[in-house]
Amino acid sequence: MTGQQADDVVTAAFLVIGDEILSGRTKDKNIGFVADYMTSIGIDLKEARIVPDETDEIVNAINALRAKYTYVFTSGGIGPTHDDITAESIAKAFGVPLNLDPRAVALLESHYAPGQFTPARQRMARIPEGAELIENKVSKAPGFKIGNVHVMAGVPSIMQAMMDAIAPTLTTGKKMMSETVSADMPESRIAERLSAIQDAHPQTLIGSYPKASEGKFTTQIVIRSRDEDVLLAATKDVAQAVAELSG
Amino acid sequence: MTGQQADDVVTAAFLVIGDEILSGRTKDKNIGFVADYMTSIGIDLKEARIVPDETDEIVNAINALRAKYTYVFTSGGIGPTHDDITAESIAKAFGVPLNLDPRAVALLESHYAPGQFTPARQRMARIPEGAELIENKVSKAPGFKIGNVHVMAGVPSIMQAMMDAIAPTLTTGKKMMSETVSADMPESRIAERLSAIQDAHPQTLIGSYPKASEGKFTTQIVIRSRDEDVLLAATKDVAQAVAELSG
Repeated sequence: MTGQQADDVVTAAFLVIGDEILSGRTKDKNIGFVADYMTSIGIDLKEARIVPDETDEIVNAINALRAKYTYVFTSGGIGPTHDDITAESIAKAFGVPLNLDPRAVALLESHYAPGQFTPARQRMARIPEGAELIENKVSKAPGFKIGNVHVMAGVPSIMQAMMDAIAPTLTTGKKMMSETVSADMPESRIAERLSAIQDAHPQTLIGSYPKASEGKFTTQIVIRSRDEDVLLAATKDVAQAVAELSG
Repeated sequence: MTGQQADDVVTAAFLVIGDEILSGRTKDKNIGFVADYMTSIGIDLKEARIVPDETDEIVNAINALRAKYTYVFTSGGIGPTHDDITAESIAKAFGVPLNLDPRAVALLESHYAPGQFTPARQRMARIPEGAELIENKVSKAPGFKIGNVHVMAGVPSIMQAMMDAIAPTLTTGKKMMSETVSADMPESRIAERLSAIQDAHPQTLIGSYPKASEGKFTTQIVIRSRDEDVLLAATKDVAQAVAELSG
């Protein structure tokens, strides 16, 4: 479920925050999830970035991305440890104070046993002033939304739950539809035909994706459009070109 | 095998180029590979970005990243089809012409049967002026290096072969070493101790990574340093803190 639908294209960027992704220690699983999610609800993911746990890098990325896209989503760095610096970086990017948030304190206080809401855990209740909380059904510590920026946890199961909580609040655009045509040939054989088909159908985005397996190259041709008739016409042309060039 | 070793830290950014990653159609496998590779040869991967097949986006990302880091690596968009626009975008970013390169023409001409080096395939021989070629052992069409930017294919097996070809030419820094301590507890329990240990060992980077599985939270604590003695001392402190807080 999502919120209202816009006539225009709605865009988004995704910012992954964390040294562990850049060192290779952890393999990111969130970009692919967010990419699929955005496509499924009619938002165009236009850019993704991964930055380290460094305040200036986070601030600069947030300010560049939030000025450019309808929405920004982030993952990582909102936990209780010293290397979790996303909340303070977001507050700095927006130029607002970061204080203990009474709503977040109430959520977390009731989650822990009496006396166990320690100073470290209280770090997770620091929310930039003016932000709304994002529910965390998995482990309670909330994410938050400020301006067009949605701040989520890095653990995939929590991030996914938070995305489900955010989705109903998002304005979405007309969904991009796609068709795929498989060609049992290297893409260089069909390249000229595809270029002509792309020119003939300017309302589509035609992508050609080579695949190497066991020393043989095949090609997946993906045709995308927001208009179903246009999509089907272009797909028919691609399929015909593949048939003519096969064998 | 890599090239000479620098005393300073050597940094890199990785730029993934391709609509198919941002739409979710293809799940990126190159970022994790490059992250591991850089760590293993002593280069700090400081940033990764994914941009669509749009000239201005590629140009802007390349110019931002090449000014900031020792090296930039890219993957994607150097094939023969109309949506492969990386070579022309890189030429534009560097303000140099993009012409058929005699070395690349020779490589590809000998690879294809007589008469099969078609105009589409000739696209793969367009190389920005002043660039050096990067060998492609898998499918011949070369990558290239211009300034500090290394342009590679998007197909993982080809990208990996190109990275092996590039590695001996790279100046690398002192390797970041790491130790991991597993803690059978949520990270909030050990957060205050970790913060104090981080403060006591400023030459380390201590990361805390929660993991949710079957409703239970455990924590991996990763200690990183370029100095082995410092690494071992900090790791000992972390292990002791975990032992004291366990049970």
